[in-house]
Amino acid sequence: MTDCEGAMSPVELYEKLTAQGDQVRALKTAKAQKADIDAAVQLLLKLKVDYKQMTGQDYKAGCPPSENTVAPDNGPAADGADDEDTVDPWNVSTTNAKGVDYDKLIVRFGSSKVDKELVDRIEKVAGQQPHRFLRRGMFFSHRDMHQVLDAYEKNKSFYLYTGRGPSSESMHVGHLIPFIFTKWLQDVFDIPLVIQLTDDEKYLWKDLTLEDCNRFAVENAKDIIACGFDVNKTFIFSDLDYMGASPEFYRNVVKIQKHVTFNQVKGIFGFTDSDCIGKISFPAIQAAPSFSNSFPHIFGSRKDIQCLIPCAIDQDPYFRMTRDVAPRIGYPKPALLHSTFFPALQGAQTKMSASDANSSIFLTDTPKQIKNKINKHAFSGGKDTVEEHRKYGGNPDVDVSFMYLTFFLEDDEQVEKIRQDYASGALLTGELKKILIETLQPMIAQHQERRKQVTDETVKQFMTPRPLNFKF
Amino acid sequence: MTDCEGAMSPVELYEKLTAQGDQVRALKTAKAQKADIDAAVQLLLKLKVDYKQMTGQDYKAGCPPSENTVAPDNGPAADGADDEDTVDPWNVSTTNAKGVDYDKLIVRFGSSKVDKELVDRIEKVAGQQPHRFLRRGMFFSHRDMHQVLDAYEKNKSFYLYTGRGPSSESMHVGHLIPFIFTKWLQDVFDIPLVIQLTDDEKYLWKDLTLEDCNRFAVENAKDIIACGFDVNKTFIFSDLDYMGASPEFYRNVVKIQKHVTFNQVKGIFGFTDSDCIGKISFPAIQAAPSFSNSFPHIFGSRKDIQCLIPCAIDQDPYFRMTRDVAPRIGYPKPALLHSTFFPALQGAQTKMSASDANSSIFLTDTPKQIKNKINKHAFSGGKDTVEEHRKYGGNPDVDVSFMYLTFFLEDDEQVEKIRQDYASGALLTGELKKILIETLQPMIAQHQERRKQVTDETVKQFMTPRPLNFKF
Repeated sequence: MTDCEGAMSPVELYEKLTAQGDQVRALKTAKAQKADIDAAVQLLLKLKVDYKQMTGQDYKAGCPPSENTVAPDNGPAADGADDEDTVDPWNVSTTNAKGVDYDKLIVRFGSSKVDKELVDRIEKVAGQQPHRFLRRGMFFSHRDMHQVLDAYEKNKSFYLYTGRGPSSESMHVGHLIPFIFTKWLQDVFDIPLVIQLTDDEKYLWKDLTLEDCNRFAVENAKDIIACGFDVNKTFIFSDLDYMGASPEFYRNVVKIQKHVTFNQVKGIFGFTDSDCIGKISFPAIQAAPSFSNSFPHIFGSRKDIQCLIPCAIDQDPYFRMTRDVAPRIGYPKPALLHSTFFPALQGAQTKMSASDANSSIFLTDTPKQIKNKINKHAFSGGKDTVEEHRKYGGNPDVDVSFMYLTFFLEDDEQVEKIRQDYASGALLTGELKKILIETLQPMIAQHQERRKQVTDETVKQFMTPRPLNFKF
Repeated sequence: MTDCEGAMSPVELYEKLTAQGDQVRALKTAKAQKADIDAAVQLLLKLKVDYKQMTGQDYKAGCPPSENTVAPDNGPAADGADDEDTVDPWNVSTTNAKGVDYDKLIVRFGSSKVDKELVDRIEKVAGQQPHRFLRRGMFFSHRDMHQVLDAYEKNKSFYLYTGRGPSSESMHVGHLIPFIFTKWLQDVFDIPLVIQLTDDEKYLWKDLTLEDCNRFAVENAKDIIACGFDVNKTFIFSDLDYMGASPEFYRNVVKIQKHVTFNQVKGIFGFTDSDCIGKISFPAIQAAPSFSNSFPHIFGSRKDIQCLIPCAIDQDPYFRMTRDVAPRIGYPKPALLHSTFFPALQGAQTKMSASDANSSIFLTDTPKQIKNKINKHAFSGGKDTVEEHRKYGGNPDVDVSFMYLTFFLEDDEQVEKIRQDYASGALLTGELKKILIETLQPMIAQHQERRKQVTDETVKQFMTPRPLNFKF
């Protein structure tokens, strides 16, 4: 499955498997030499593993593959046996109130855990306390972070790439997580940042016009800029605009598209024959910013500058594909830092939805709306009555208000004290919600204040292809 | 199969068919009313036709569709029963020495014949004698030409679009056919012309680098310009360059990609699951120049200017797809004028190959090379000995030298006299070849002379997005 020409379809693999099964039986019947039988059996087993990986189904003689059934991902341990969590770029869901089992996800996706050793090392290299998202395990998984740090210690720079799919004008607090963290990384390492707004993707997947998607991209850019990015170090682009402004970007898209087959995107993303060809080829467009020569105005013709992508774990399928392609087109693989999902007010079983106003706190919410939403909708880990709560304590692990505080309260000791008080019953649900309300109200108000300062002119500056304050 | 969301896969259709078969049997067993049984049978028959059209196979109970077998095209009469001719953008072949059966192709593709009435009408509207390619049936098939002429008579203008896939530096005389004819159309109707060089396509299909494909595009542009196009009325573009220079072009590509499914391109082009996603999505890139707002520098924001595409018939699958999509994205369908294939020196069974130097006369050939190639390789319709030839005459219908003369000799009477003399045996094969040699030698020499005048600066002018001398 690694070459554009040589890949087998599920049906071809199925036929090869059937033939190999016949071969094994024939050898046994003929009482062939043990070594020959063993070799044939081993090939048979290998083909069965390939088949399972490609189709998500066990091989059964006489049952050709159904073409619409695929593995949820093509990670090394995609055996589908161990969990009910669904995690891909369009669906995140779990039946567990604590949320997705992230340790299992690391095994399934074949990434590495952000362990204490890595956090300590980032602290050492960065020369300052790691961001709370690192200290508290929000960025819990990575690929090749040690390689990035090794190179950085030898004065070899890298760049950051993150993005957003602009499906509506409004963003919620959860959307800020990758941007807050990316800003911290940029400040600490002093490196260029590119931010992709996939307005073409939203047009392909949603019932929206091109004009709306492009307008949402510009509106979302204002909220992103309001996070405090430095215009001299940051390039924000919409696909619909940048594709038509950079022959180099399109060249990388075509290069990637030549080296990925439909079989591969079917396996990775679950596309079917009824999907439009735009969806099928889109993954190349999300992959292209991982390569520095997609941005000649920033990196000149340099194609060897490594990319680090901070993103939510559901975006990993795109970058598994990118990392598979990179060496075959002569580019370095991008490194990744994966975050957990920001829970919906209703609970950690699902990601928030930008289309359900009550599922989260939006960046446009008034102090009153924030207060009402939290009091009314934030899933509580408390007991039914004050008496029971005082007696048995609440469960912070499933309490959404507490989860939100772990994202936004900077002081580790304060967070820990709230956890203990809630678990012991000393802190009531209403009191916990009050702390969250009083944390979010000024935070959102300040964001709104900063967003007001972002003029159309500022957006244009950020979104114009231009050199940044770095020499390459 | 017309909507991005609602299309069925072959497997789904197979399952629906099986269920409908069961339903018919159940009704018959239950002795249901005749009207009900008839309705169920009619739906069954309709599903069988759909199935054949989608998969190219007859439905057989118990045999699910093989996913790599598809119809050679999805034209209305694609029943596969009637011929051995293969005609698609990558393969043209026939077992008939006279070449492809073009009348059957018109039926299979669902296009219309360029009949005497249409040629007469073009003469009337154009106010001059139709080009020899029209008089002699080289442009033999069309779609919507009467509509284009109706509008033109009411002072509603249109524009021309043709193209070339730049697979090498050198072009042969056959490659000139669409350009010679397009230039005539442009001169006669005084309308804008856009010429697409699909260097991205060649990169995706061939073992070539992006840089080579782009270089070939520029080299080919010189030969095209040498045909005499007016820089004030003609825009030539390479996909690899223009995609990165025009957000409007990319927007149309994405629009088309949203409205075409993998099932559709599988049916039209025979793509398989092992094809790379670049090939799968490419048809949208060849479709996009059919819509006037892909060229805002020429047409402003006008999206209603009809396009006329002169091209060889093997390109029709792209434009059948384009015409299917057009009304669904609010654009007019492009009209088409289809040409026959220019035969290889070895005979009319196949199209010429740019990679076989002996299969055609190249635009870089010397007078000596032209003479040697024709004498040595041009398939002859003559008899084995002079005596037999004088007695029985030759066969101009399979004689490649005669076929070439029909393309390049302007004088109808002269062509007819050569035909009669060759058929009667008055003209020997050597003499016929001499006429062709003496026709091609000065024609190619003049082309080479004009090409020498084409500087890099001229190419750049033609290939720069800019307004043309027309107001829209």
